[in-house]
Amino acid sequence: MSIYEESLQFHKELKGKFEVISRAKVESEKDLSLAYTPGVAEPCREIAKDPTNAYIYTRKCNTVAVISDGTAVLGLGDIGALASLPVMEGKSILFKEFADVDAFPIVLNTKDTDEIVETVSRIAGSLGGINLEDISAPRCFEIERRLKEKLDIPVFHDDQHGTAIVVLAGIMNALKIIKKEPSDLKVVMSGAGAAGVAIAKLLLSFGVKNIVMFNKEGIIDRNKEYTDPSLVEISKITNPNNESGELADSIKGADVFVGVSAPNLLSTEMVSTMNRDAIIFAMANPVPEIFPEDAKKGGARIIGTGRSDFPNQVNNVLAFPGIFRGALDVRASDINEEMKLAAAHAIADQVSDEELNEDYIIPKALNKNVAEAVAEAVKQAAINSGVARIK
Amino acid sequence: MSIYEESLQFHKELKGKFEVISRAKVESEKDLSLAYTPGVAEPCREIAKDPTNAYIYTRKCNTVAVISDGTAVLGLGDIGALASLPVMEGKSILFKEFADVDAFPIVLNTKDTDEIVETVSRIAGSLGGINLEDISAPRCFEIERRLKEKLDIPVFHDDQHGTAIVVLAGIMNALKIIKKEPSDLKVVMSGAGAAGVAIAKLLLSFGVKNIVMFNKEGIIDRNKEYTDPSLVEISKITNPNNESGELADSIKGADVFVGVSAPNLLSTEMVSTMNRDAIIFAMANPVPEIFPEDAKKGGARIIGTGRSDFPNQVNNVLAFPGIFRGALDVRASDINEEMKLAAAHAIADQVSDEELNEDYIIPKALNKNVAEAVAEAVKQAAINSGVARIK
Repeated sequence: MSIYEESLQFHKELKGKFEVISRAKVESEKDLSLAYTPGVAEPCREIAKDPTNAYIYTRKCNTVAVISDGTAVLGLGDIGALASLPVMEGKSILFKEFADVDAFPIVLNTKDTDEIVETVSRIAGSLGGINLEDISAPRCFEIERRLKEKLDIPVFHDDQHGTAIVVLAGIMNALKIIKKEPSDLKVVMSGAGAAGVAIAKLLLSFGVKNIVMFNKEGIIDRNKEYTDPSLVEISKITNPNNESGELADSIKGADVFVGVSAPNLLSTEMVSTMNRDAIIFAMANPVPEIFPEDAKKGGARIIGTGRSDFPNQVNNVLAFPGIFRGALDVRASDINEEMKLAAAHAIADQVSDEELNEDYIIPKALNKNVAEAVAEAVKQAAINSGVARIK
Repeated sequence: MSIYEESLQFHKELKGKFEVISRAKVESEKDLSLAYTPGVAEPCREIAKDPTNAYIYTRKCNTVAVISDGTAVLGLGDIGALASLPVMEGKSILFKEFADVDAFPIVLNTKDTDEIVETVSRIAGSLGGINLEDISAPRCFEIERRLKEKLDIPVFHDDQHGTAIVVLAGIMNALKIIKKEPSDLKVVMSGAGAAGVAIAKLLLSFGVKNIVMFNKEGIIDRNKEYTDPSLVEISKITNPNNESGELADSIKGADVFVGVSAPNLLSTEMVSTMNRDAIIFAMANPVPEIFPEDAKKGGARIIGTGRSDFPNQVNNVLAFPGIFRGALDVRASDINEEMKLAAAHAIADQVSDEELNEDYIIPKALNKNVAEAVAEAVKQAAINSGVARIK
């Protein structure tokens, strides 16, 4: 039986992956009068006086909604909101299992940017944070930006930032091995969708100066006209030397390749033209831009993929549970660049100097200690950057 | 310490009343690949092919959202959506504790009827049902009607129908004691808000012919002009004899009084003008339209209130958990009049003929057997009335 058939059977038997339970017992009249009427009127009155009391008297303090419109689901594309629900339920339970965050899925019966922003804003009251998921680019950028502006709780599109944070953690550790500085690197990227754009921006925040990005139309440079605002922005902050040409041209002498694009785009020969100690992240799934063995043949030193059956898996579960745990713990109003960098450092630091090697630059996805370390680092970064509302 | 202070303390220590847990274990790579990627792609594909598969592979089969705009919360009125959250969390846990339904609260940051209908429609995908709560009249009628039209899952405004169903159950049992038929009754009602309107309609469905309703402006009759559509409707289906005058006039010779209005509206003297074996439901909370002892002095035989410290408490928890349990069990597309009548019968039947007496016409709120009986009756009624999608 394939993993797909097995998973279908598993889902059928389970009848849904999450469950909502009561934290209060309801067995006596007294229980009922404390948790419900008449007693419940008092926390209501306290919140009416001061909305921040919702963090004290309700589950807002620990609740995240996993929200999708189903337009960019796994490798399946735009399969519709309802069909994305198994993924959103999966994400919800990972929040609980890895970081004790209470998360439930909301799938949106609209693909319109304005309607999504409106709808999510209107239901945000009971939430401590919002995890956007599997929303297609470039709509995801505007939706996230507008929600961040409108709401005073963290809004985090995991396909962008979760991936970017784990890739950065991997690069941080790879640089320890090959002893280079971020400012010395030339990074060539393939893919300028949700993940690609976020990775580029986070690498720039980390101190990388020279990133050259490619999408399906070719190299991204400031002399071209773009209608997509995210590409306009990317064209201004990448490709500082105004390179032109193909991926095979730019890859020559590059230190790092990051692929979030399509299968088999990178050849052994192209890798062989890279700088020595080349680092490759080939994250197209399930078939990467280049398989690790082919990259090795070209001389690459460190290789990561999105797959659990190769070393150095980039898995977002290393990031999002701990990030929201940390943000919720200090009632952060935002998840900002400082918090993302702190999360990447914390993930990288979970691999000790003794353990660190070419095949182990990223902690294992199932290492549940990571979330705790990430939470602590994110919490401190939230406090230091002024978005924490309690300490 | 008052119940209010105690409840505040209780809420503070508990940090929220619900919690979202995982029904799947996530400890190995295999677990992750079944519940999440890559396996999860398969249930996604199955739902994309046929949306009804969401009932098989996700928690849609057992999930209800408790949705409010905070405009009519308990006796507190329009305290705002966020301040209503402790009530919505309370309701959510009662769903789980009484009927194993997974419910979570959504509070809406808008009071606009169109926006509420829009927003709830857009987030309904992952839900098996919608419990509207504490939305003020007359907006609640239009909101519920439009959502019922738009959505193919049950939409149920509990303040209306939950109350109506339990009152009807009480009246059913009271009639067994006093040996009258519904068609023989004159029912006088005080209050034409959410609960009042729903009670009147359900009593008419049950076979009552003569209902006379009063609101703050006085008697409701078809010769007056109403702007509120719910009053236009009520004026056409009640007061068949075109009575005029005050409550004190209409109450003369009445068999039943139902109050969902304001404290102390009914005097002992008024009760003494009622027909013999008078039945009184005085549900203003916490101070009823008349206290039981005063009603007794006037000659009333059977008295119910909204309070747990008097006999015959009308408590919605007797209805909503079992109703949604039954509706979810057969994937009902609606909760219709037949299902409400069936629920009332099931609640009434939970008081055996041996137990039945003037002070025990309604089962105790904490009797958790009621929900199961209600669920079974509602399920059958859904099947018989053609709204069940499985059997």
